Amino acid sequence: MTYRMVDLIQKKRDGGAFSKAEIEWIIENYVTGFVPDYQMSAWAMAIYFKGMTTEETAYLTMAMVASGKQIDLSAIPGIKVDKHSTGGVGDKVTLILAPLVASFGVPVAKMSGRGLGHTGGTLDKLESIPGFNIEKSEDAFIEQVKTAGLAVIGQSDDLVKADKLLYALRDVTATVDIIPLIASSVMSKKIAAGSNAILLDVTVGDGAFMKSVEDARILARTMVDLGKSVGRETVAVITNMSQPLGMAIGNRNEITEAVNTLNGKGSKEFRTFIAELAQLMLSLAGESKSIEEIISHLDDGSAYAKFVAMVKAQEGDPTAFDHLTAELNVKYKVEIHAEKAGYIAAEKALGVGVLAMKLGAGRATKTDTIDFEAGVTLAKKVGDFVEKGDLIATLYSNKPITAELIAEFNAAIEISNDKIHQKEIIEIVR
Amino acid sequence: MTYRMVDLIQKKRDGGAFSKAEIEWIIENYVTGFVPDYQMSAWAMAIYFKGMTTEETAYLTMAMVASGKQIDLSAIPGIKVDKHSTGGVGDKVTLILAPLVASFGVPVAKMSGRGLGHTGGTLDKLESIPGFNIEKSEDAFIEQVKTAGLAVIGQSDDLVKADKLLYALRDVTATVDIIPLIASSVMSKKIAAGSNAILLDVTVGDGAFMKSVEDARILARTMVDLGKSVGRETVAVITNMSQPLGMAIGNRNEITEAVNTLNGKGSKEFRTFIAELAQLMLSLAGESKSIEEIISHLDDGSAYAKFVAMVKAQEGDPTAFDHLTAELNVKYKVEIHAEKAGYIAAEKALGVGVLAMKLGAGRATKTDTIDFEAGVTLAKKVGDFVEKGDLIATLYSNKPITAELIAEFNAAIEISNDKIHQKEIIEIVR
Repeated sequence: MTYRMVDLIQKKRDGGAFSKAEIEWIIENYVTGFVPDYQMSAWAMAIYFKGMTTEETAYLTMAMVASGKQIDLSAIPGIKVDKHSTGGVGDKVTLILAPLVASFGVPVAKMSGRGLGHTGGTLDKLESIPGFNIEKSEDAFIEQVKTAGLAVIGQSDDLVKADKLLYALRDVTATVDIIPLIASSVMSKKIAAGSNAILLDVTVGDGAFMKSVEDARILARTMVDLGKSVGRETVAVITNMSQPLGMAIGNRNEITEAVNTLNGKGSKEFRTFIAELAQLMLSLAGESKSIEEIISHLDDGSAYAKFVAMVKAQEGDPTAFDHLTAELNVKYKVEIHAEKAGYIAAEKALGVGVLAMKLGAGRATKTDTIDFEAGVTLAKKVGDFVEKGDLIATLYSNKPITAELIAEFNAAIEISNDKIHQKEIIEIVR
Repeated sequence: MTYRMVDLIQKKRDGGAFSKAEIEWIIENYVTGFVPDYQMSAWAMAIYFKGMTTEETAYLTMAMVASGKQIDLSAIPGIKVDKHSTGGVGDKVTLILAPLVASFGVPVAKMSGRGLGHTGGTLDKLESIPGFNIEKSEDAFIEQVKTAGLAVIGQSDDLVKADKLLYALRDVTATVDIIPLIASSVMSKKIAAGSNAILLDVTVGDGAFMKSVEDARILARTMVDLGKSVGRETVAVITNMSQPLGMAIGNRNEITEAVNTLNGKGSKEFRTFIAELAQLMLSLAGESKSIEEIISHLDDGSAYAKFVAMVKAQEGDPTAFDHLTAELNVKYKVEIHAEKAGYIAAEKALGVGVLAMKLGAGRATKTDTIDFEAGVTLAKKVGDFVEKGDLIATLYSNKPITAELIAEFNAAIEISNDKIHQKEIIEIVR
């Protein structure tokens, strides 16, 4: 069957639903270049306004999977679990969660993408470890998961070719925040990457793509149903990204917080949050563990041992962690103090994330280079009490920190008389 | 001021209105190639869903005018009037109206576009006259209007460069039928072409872009206001395009009907329709004429004399009209007869137009060649009574006329017991 792309754009524009054959035709012909970018962007904008049915989203996801290579992890014994986050500020979860889950004998084979904008990427954080190599062949990747129990590498260029093209196009045509396109982008990569089970962290709040819990719930439900429909056990957690995750934002800064947490030094809230995610991942692999058991692996060094094993297997220098308590090595440092007494009512993730990017911790465009040392360290989180003059945060940069940047940080902070409690896990979607 | 196109697409997607500076930036940068097609098509699709304000449409129109050359007709004495139709099946109006108006001493300087799809183009019809040249330099064009009183030529490539690019893009991205984009496309060309006054024929019905009178009214109002806002006297007529205009569809076929009408042989309804349009054009030029006076110029040969003057001035062979009564020179000819007695209730313009295109009279794509002899001649129009077996129409083609094509024609015809009256001019918008 052959189609005219202009008719298919019009079909969606006028509220129609695509057949499996139509969606396969679109994706196949987009990857070969027969359907040009200018038709795909109009098509994506029509989807922004008219949406996609559950069936269409499933067809799209599987057509995208078919557009590239699929990884076969069957050589690794056991149920392989993968994890994906829709992006957050200060999100070093993978760095802690992957070794923690692996410490229970569950293999973790994870492929990650680069970060862009105000949400940092796991690959960038790992590359701030001297020598760490995120490029591995498929065979070497599988071998590492078999021997070390875990591996976190960069996503292969051969995987889900349609997504690479479509994501770059959506990024410049205001068609990023479309639930069926986000769902098919995430799930096509997870399905192609070959794990048997998937934990999805759907972030919500001003620092995330999803601004409302309702939207996050729709995205989570869409992705969980997609995963199940192709035989992958999938669970999603909707997590709060109205403030940054943990205390550290920035690359070396987040590695330090991750290593500290893996060594039993994290805050109670953060350790519990990580343990709850680990419990879900373990349960997907058929392992039922209590929160206490899981936290014990943070305290007894077994999770950290898995992390060190991964760093060594990927050529990173483990002696780097000997100097972890050293301060970030930057030229400029500014302390932010409370302007009045009260409870921290907001530490807006978007504001803090964009500021950290401007300090050098992230990329505004794909060609920007990252300063691994730049970042923000929070001293207080939402719900904490401060006296006037108390330290709230420290900003680190190798570029002069202007008064405008300091004002930007202060604009992200609110102090109130009422104590606010923010849940980290809002909801679980199974 | 500089912008990021992705932000401007998002602004429209989210329902915002553009400033003059933003629209000028978009059009200037699209013409230079800095803004690529894939951003313009997403922008156009966002406009499909979110529309444009009157101000935005005016800014867009003038930015498009500024993207190319503007014709200066001031060397021609008097008020120059132009005419544009949004496209119809069997629309040979310009061929009759231009010489008729010119026969009253009002100069007509018209630039036309090519036809695509089921609506034929005036240029194609003129080129079916042996030798007729539709390419003239600006100076020669002006000289001809001064000496012969009228000229109809092809639109210069230098005129409204943004429209050429945008129209080709809209054609393949399902963004053609968007009122502010149609209005700015039409009016930018009319404004750049330099006439002082403009008559717009906004067609409505299944053979036209506008399917409802409400939409046609909005388009007409938008274009009339646009013209007036830049000092061009503008009037629009909303005309019925639910059935073809006149009896002939096809290139030589329509030239023949036009020449016959210019020689006083047209039907009463068609002559009156043309005279009403001529009255509006003459009035725009400050000439008040009665319908009777105007029709007298069809009967006394003065309109035809202007037509012959134009054909000669544009190197056409006027002896071609000596054989006008000769039948169309085609290999295949099929007569369609009434299947039952009754009144013709519908002769759907879209169906008849698409059929004529398939017989060879039009282009499905820009590279198709046209068969000047192919076409359809109607024997009956909506409201006419037929006995069973009466001739309704004759189809002419140099390709075999299949049973499917005949069935397609019959599907466009309805015969009923009730006599239907269709007005040709539905409304005048001033």
